[in-house]
Amino acid sequence: MVMPKGPQAFPRSEYLRRLSAVKAEMERREVAALVVTTPANITYLSGYTSKSGYVPQALVVFASDEEPTFVTRRMDAPAAVHQMFVDRSRVIGYPEALIANPERDGYDAIIDLVLDKGLGQKGIGLEVKFLAAATTEKFRSRAAKATIVDFTNVVTWIRGVKSDLEIAVMRESAAIADAGMLRATEVIRPGVREADAAAEIIATLVRGAKGKPGTDLSSFFLCASPRASTCHIRWTEDVFRQGSQINLEFGGVRHGYVSALMRTMSIGKPSDRLRRLHEGEVAGLEAALAVAKPGATCGDVAVAFNATLKKHDFEKESRCGYAIGIDWTEPTASLKEGDSTILKPNMTFHLMLGNWIDEEFGYVISETFRVTESGSESFTKLPRVIFEL
Amino acid sequence: MVMPKGPQAFPRSEYLRRLSAVKAEMERREVAALVVTTPANITYLSGYTSKSGYVPQALVVFASDEEPTFVTRRMDAPAAVHQMFVDRSRVIGYPEALIANPERDGYDAIIDLVLDKGLGQKGIGLEVKFLAAATTEKFRSRAAKATIVDFTNVVTWIRGVKSDLEIAVMRESAAIADAGMLRATEVIRPGVREADAAAEIIATLVRGAKGKPGTDLSSFFLCASPRASTCHIRWTEDVFRQGSQINLEFGGVRHGYVSALMRTMSIGKPSDRLRRLHEGEVAGLEAALAVAKPGATCGDVAVAFNATLKKHDFEKESRCGYAIGIDWTEPTASLKEGDSTILKPNMTFHLMLGNWIDEEFGYVISETFRVTESGSESFTKLPRVIFEL
Repeated sequence: MVMPKGPQAFPRSEYLRRLSAVKAEMERREVAALVVTTPANITYLSGYTSKSGYVPQALVVFASDEEPTFVTRRMDAPAAVHQMFVDRSRVIGYPEALIANPERDGYDAIIDLVLDKGLGQKGIGLEVKFLAAATTEKFRSRAAKATIVDFTNVVTWIRGVKSDLEIAVMRESAAIADAGMLRATEVIRPGVREADAAAEIIATLVRGAKGKPGTDLSSFFLCASPRASTCHIRWTEDVFRQGSQINLEFGGVRHGYVSALMRTMSIGKPSDRLRRLHEGEVAGLEAALAVAKPGATCGDVAVAFNATLKKHDFEKESRCGYAIGIDWTEPTASLKEGDSTILKPNMTFHLMLGNWIDEEFGYVISETFRVTESGSESFTKLPRVIFEL
Repeated sequence: MVMPKGPQAFPRSEYLRRLSAVKAEMERREVAALVVTTPANITYLSGYTSKSGYVPQALVVFASDEEPTFVTRRMDAPAAVHQMFVDRSRVIGYPEALIANPERDGYDAIIDLVLDKGLGQKGIGLEVKFLAAATTEKFRSRAAKATIVDFTNVVTWIRGVKSDLEIAVMRESAAIADAGMLRATEVIRPGVREADAAAEIIATLVRGAKGKPGTDLSSFFLCASPRASTCHIRWTEDVFRQGSQINLEFGGVRHGYVSALMRTMSIGKPSDRLRRLHEGEVAGLEAALAVAKPGATCGDVAVAFNATLKKHDFEKESRCGYAIGIDWTEPTASLKEGDSTILKPNMTFHLMLGNWIDEEFGYVISETFRVTESGSESFTKLPRVIFEL
């Protein structure tokens, strides 16, 4: 028996559409082989979500071929056959001799593939920014007559505009995030350990919502008093107390696609300062969503948020969001003043209004939204409140 | 109110001991400032486990100073003050202007710190292999008169030998992994969705064991029929069936320290082929542990395993393990033939005997062990069986 194909998250036509957009960019930049190494971009172009990126691997898009070819460690090849939309012949497992070997590694197998295809004197695209210097150097020396073209974030920009199929998946992720947040409101109580509450919330993110399980876990942060000014602590061994503030950030995940969500909770009445900041942030959130529409820029959204928050006598130092999709952040468009990225329908953003003001004071609220034909639409169904527990 | 110090996983003396070993190596290589950027090495030298490594950050060890200095994004500074053993003055938050800015980034703040200290003409250590080429280049150009010294994996090698305090923490992690595996034997049943079983197991890994919660989650893989030949799929939406085989790999985590564990389960009787492979692997595991002792090499352990497995008419292509500690794998010593690393007391390894033989056949078993004064000691208390459910 050979490895069967698993259920595919998207139809073949969807992957071919994505590849067409990438190939158009390859043609424009005279690239015959694009070596995609960023895990999120590999997921985008193939459906692969297995976690083999701890060793060298690449999805190689050839301008000449309809389907891309995946090169990975041999033990990871069956998962690729199972998950990817491509024919099994398109998955190449390289031998163990290339693991923990200072002389030759998996990138040599990838370079071999490109050279064997006769492309040693053509343009080769690399996501240079995310490669170690030694790896780029290896391509330059082993393919000395090729032209190395920096494709950093090119695929990432292409996946910035989602298809309706992707939006549907992100809605499923958002429903999971909502379920996790509601579970948090049930389990966070005085005397409960942070870890025990985290266990319940995380289990909900895995079980999923509306019959659709989470397919992975993404970042998860539970920052509670006296750590409510921190933003990236998982959870601690401490217990919640009367008066505790709890800042939560996590996402639901479906087929790699993340919808992120943040809410602040309070055991008992929130302080006046917290309530005032919350009011300003929610007003800012609504102002930002009102401005977000096709033709506006990312900077416009940030200006709307910042100006509104300022009217409430607060400021937020960090940007108020970023593009989101596969594996959370897309390192492309930022919701920050001066970002001139023009919004298009089905771009998706994490409007991230976490505001860590000083060592004793932080607050979070966020929503994942898409740009619609005429405005914007948040994926969460949760109220914009400080949850009082 | 300023951010209080959190409970510390290790006493100050333990961190100073670790730093002494690092400074001895710095002196030997004439390095005045070591820029530690690998998250696991930052944890090792400071106790910091917050997840801020998504932006530039570094723990800078100065040969002249008792305590290191941490440079991170300003919003992440409070968590560092809370978690690190160092004085709060040793935590420097850089401004948001350095985020998503193509001209200047957090590494500029790190370079500023080193230059302001008057070390622009001294040796500066970098973990080059794990830095983007542009980052190393930035150090070379902004500190043009300094000597850049490659410190890749130097701290990682130092943390290869654990203290008794670290071993105690890894035992706590192992107890958590054991609890997770036992939970798996309870919840994996025909008709249950893989995701729902994963939710229960993961919740157990967070709740922890013996009153000690997990402090984080690490890799988690549940590869079940018809995917029992894959190794790095999280879980799927499929249900278990009578006759399903389930290969599990995960770890317990305490304060960053991981003890990894793998076991194979079967709903109903395992196949003959699976039982025969299991017998060979367990014999190999025991042979490997019998050989592991101070003075033996990593290669000796691999030879013992491989020779034993061969007597049972099987082979394993991949190495049979690697050093383990903070954040799972230490990219240093490998349990593979030819690795001449000499075992010392309190080195810790993941004896990883996962064996993915072909597209229809894979099996896993693993244990995390330490080298003792006279032999080896596995941390798990679980039997070496195929769990029949």
